[in-house]
Amino acid sequence: MANFSDRLHDAIVRTAAPVVVGLDPRFESLPQTLLGDHRGTHDPKVKAGLYLVFCREVIDAVYQHVPAVKPQSAFFEELGPAGMIVLAEVIQYAREKGLLVILDAKRNDIGSTATAYAKGMLGPNSPWQADCLTISPYLGDDSLTPFVETAIANEAGLFCLVKTSNPGGKMLQDLVVDDQPIYRHVGAYVEGLAQQTRGNCGFGAVGAVVGATYPDQLSELRTAMPSTWFLVPGYGSQGGGAKDVAGGFNENGIGSIVNNSRGIIFAYSREPFASKYEPKQWQRAVEDATLEMIADLQEHTTAGKLKG
Amino acid sequence: MANFSDRLHDAIVRTAAPVVVGLDPRFESLPQTLLGDHRGTHDPKVKAGLYLVFCREVIDAVYQHVPAVKPQSAFFEELGPAGMIVLAEVIQYAREKGLLVILDAKRNDIGSTATAYAKGMLGPNSPWQADCLTISPYLGDDSLTPFVETAIANEAGLFCLVKTSNPGGKMLQDLVVDDQPIYRHVGAYVEGLAQQTRGNCGFGAVGAVVGATYPDQLSELRTAMPSTWFLVPGYGSQGGGAKDVAGGFNENGIGSIVNNSRGIIFAYSREPFASKYEPKQWQRAVEDATLEMIADLQEHTTAGKLKG
Repeated sequence: MANFSDRLHDAIVRTAAPVVVGLDPRFESLPQTLLGDHRGTHDPKVKAGLYLVFCREVIDAVYQHVPAVKPQSAFFEELGPAGMIVLAEVIQYAREKGLLVILDAKRNDIGSTATAYAKGMLGPNSPWQADCLTISPYLGDDSLTPFVETAIANEAGLFCLVKTSNPGGKMLQDLVVDDQPIYRHVGAYVEGLAQQTRGNCGFGAVGAVVGATYPDQLSELRTAMPSTWFLVPGYGSQGGGAKDVAGGFNENGIGSIVNNSRGIIFAYSREPFASKYEPKQWQRAVEDATLEMIADLQEHTTAGKLKG
Repeated sequence: MANFSDRLHDAIVRTAAPVVVGLDPRFESLPQTLLGDHRGTHDPKVKAGLYLVFCREVIDAVYQHVPAVKPQSAFFEELGPAGMIVLAEVIQYAREKGLLVILDAKRNDIGSTATAYAKGMLGPNSPWQADCLTISPYLGDDSLTPFVETAIANEAGLFCLVKTSNPGGKMLQDLVVDDQPIYRHVGAYVEGLAQQTRGNCGFGAVGAVVGATYPDQLSELRTAMPSTWFLVPGYGSQGGGAKDVAGGFNENGIGSIVNNSRGIIFAYSREPFASKYEPKQWQRAVEDATLEMIADLQEHTTAGKLKG
């Protein structure tokens, strides 16, 4: 174990792939060959069981290529306790395969309640055993510090929402105070936390979520937040491309880890993969889409410097 | 079933008690008589089993006096899947006793991910079966509307964070844009959602979280948000009293439901209850503390008009 920031850095350098595969199981999108006779089921336990199989097979297809996976808690919570049991199993399986696990749960609360979330979710001695958790900043500084303290005590990491990928994010995040949008104020606070939690790689264990759909702001924040890892959603299905995320990397090809969920895990249902593979070969589509994304980032961003 | 707002209104009028009991089980605070030989356990399943017993006994002590309970998801999540199984059982037990259940989970995400949270948690046909969920607004309008749509489809409710009870809440919430603090901007948006989801009682199914620790802002928001229910944390352990929450009620004694967690469920460990009752009578302390809070609100706020 080491500082989360250094573990993330080493895994990205080793794979030359600043990519995280988002595990967003949606029942209606699961491959038919996996659903079999259960297509019409309403039983959360049956659905959860299929999520486990699906996520394990996705992990098998990608673990040799990428540093991390990001389970989206919502899709497991949607199935009730049965989904939560499977979420823990998915995290454990990913860890066994050597992947870092970023649990996307956007948690937020104050004081000892925030500590309870962090204790439950972060580190190998916690019940959920995630390496990293996404958090949300509306409650302010004294809601973030309990997460930070527990994360550091467990050599885990955090990504705090700063500038999100959705159009409506502007409602609060782009309001201007003292000549700066709110996301810059939150970004400055997160950069301070990153500096306080810096590892040997120069980046902190507290990172920021910055969407690929706002490339100018991504570049602006990369400059303003030199010690902060960015978790970048919005590549692929949400419309962002490699050129849009290029600003998230520094001159050494470091600084961002770009998420792709549907574009990878359900690649079997889109071209060119849908024509290329039989339905039962959906795992090959997952692997191909992952390799395609890695090559795209290596070609169009400074992350190409990580190769060889 | 009916609009959540009307169900909340009717339950408050019936009990003359605008009080929600917060179910925040903390292992180290559980009554010794309940812990028995398990005091030193580190087994999440054992702890979760004790949380179930504790929460059921709290519910037994309060269900005839208050309209609602508010389980804090963090303390159940802290125990991993075992805690989540018990959370569902606690919600089910509270519903069987006729209580409304406000699940305090402060969820937030975008699009179909937000819908997944809402579908999983809200309404009698969902796995978690809560009547109402707390949500967080940093991601903006298109993150809130999926929650609202699913809540309305299931005759459930929401409380969105607006002005929270913690000191650090000011970091973002009090920043001023166009002569108004951010919490007024969020409040105006939530009031719009409340008006769109209004029940027969005149209040909407989308409410706001407004802390008892900022009485002036509570009064200000009551005036600015005439259709919005307030969920008011901060009474009791966080320092707010009945006079501090008085501004949250309109002239008819309606408009707020005030939360108390530790001050009720762990009343056995504080005066005057600690001296009054034997340790094994901790449930009587829970009931006494509840009745004392109801009387306090009836005496010092317009909620007194709801009596008899």
